[in-house]
Amino acid sequence: MAAKRAYLAGPEVFLPDAAKIGAAKKAVCARHGLEGVFPLDDHPDLESMGAAQRARAIYLTCRKLMDRCDLLIANMTPFRGPSADVGTAFEMGYMRGRGRPVFGYSNSHETYAERILAQMGDLELRQKGGALVVGDGLAVENFELSDNLMLPGVVHESGARVVTAAVPKRELWTSLATFEICVRQAVARLTRAR
Amino acid sequence: MAAKRAYLAGPEVFLPDAAKIGAAKKAVCARHGLEGVFPLDDHPDLESMGAAQRARAIYLTCRKLMDRCDLLIANMTPFRGPSADVGTAFEMGYMRGRGRPVFGYSNSHETYAERILAQMGDLELRQKGGALVVGDGLAVENFELSDNLMLPGVVHESGARVVTAAVPKRELWTSLATFEICVRQAVARLTRAR
Repeated sequence: MAAKRAYLAGPEVFLPDAAKIGAAKKAVCARHGLEGVFPLDDHPDLESMGAAQRARAIYLTCRKLMDRCDLLIANMTPFRGPSADVGTAFEMGYMRGRGRPVFGYSNSHETYAERILAQMGDLELRQKGGALVVGDGLAVENFELSDNLMLPGVVHESGARVVTAAVPKRELWTSLATFEICVRQAVARLTRAR
Repeated sequence: MAAKRAYLAGPEVFLPDAAKIGAAKKAVCARHGLEGVFPLDDHPDLESMGAAQRARAIYLTCRKLMDRCDLLIANMTPFRGPSADVGTAFEMGYMRGRGRPVFGYSNSHETYAERILAQMGDLELRQKGGALVVGDGLAVENFELSDNLMLPGVVHESGARVVTAAVPKRELWTSLATFEICVRQAVARLTRAR
């Protein structure tokens, strides 16, 4: 039977050595019987394009790569703020909309609420009818989850949990230990579902 | 003919007067012949639930509300960082995965790159082969877009553009002027497509 194809969503595409980390993630997938598809695979020649055309070409290529995949594994490690990369969140939604299972992991072990409070400063926290509200007046989801509830929600709906582990800061974007646990979890889940 | 139903994605659900702003957004939709569906509509009684159960109930309710809608209009105003709310990004992806058109607006007129550079400090900017790279070594998308290219990408694929306008800071979450332009654009697009 052909290996299931897993779309490897995540902000690694912004790393200087993106291709190298993509290859390493595919090798982890192969060890567990999955075929990894990295968002930078199969892109057309972008050099000759202007900025707007290039952005659209990348969008369409990623969307088509997802269409060829059977599942998605998202790197939900917080990116430039307390939440996952929005491109990754978009792709998690897209694959769920297509009826495919979505798995996820994060190299941060803190909850979403903990990260927001660290960002806003604890002094700005007010308890308001049981809910957390920070200085800007906006409520903070306080569900002991790793991110905005829609993201753990889709992973849960796929029969799994977001795998989280703290890794040393300098390995935040390179450590694949949490990823490998997530791959193993996804394979076990897909096998059970068969 | 029944009005088309628009799912009104956005972080307004975290505002203290979320229900009020939801009603105001629905009124704008009604003026333009759309039926607005707000993410807080039709939620089950959450009070009796524990945190984990409540989070799952909200996730499922939002997903089912989206399934009943014909299009999505996203508030992409940056939320707790340089990007849109990840819950909103997830929902944009979900609706595209379901084959529905996705429209979006932002009450920030800056580009994604401008916001990241402001956050990181311009001093940390390095030009590297034409791409922008900030102090943490991660590349910054520099496509003159309002956010990570996947989000403007899906709006463009739906035949529209992200509507952006700067509003006074204290009206960031309450001004509906940009939203109304986006609603009008969505209606025009849907009418042309018919």
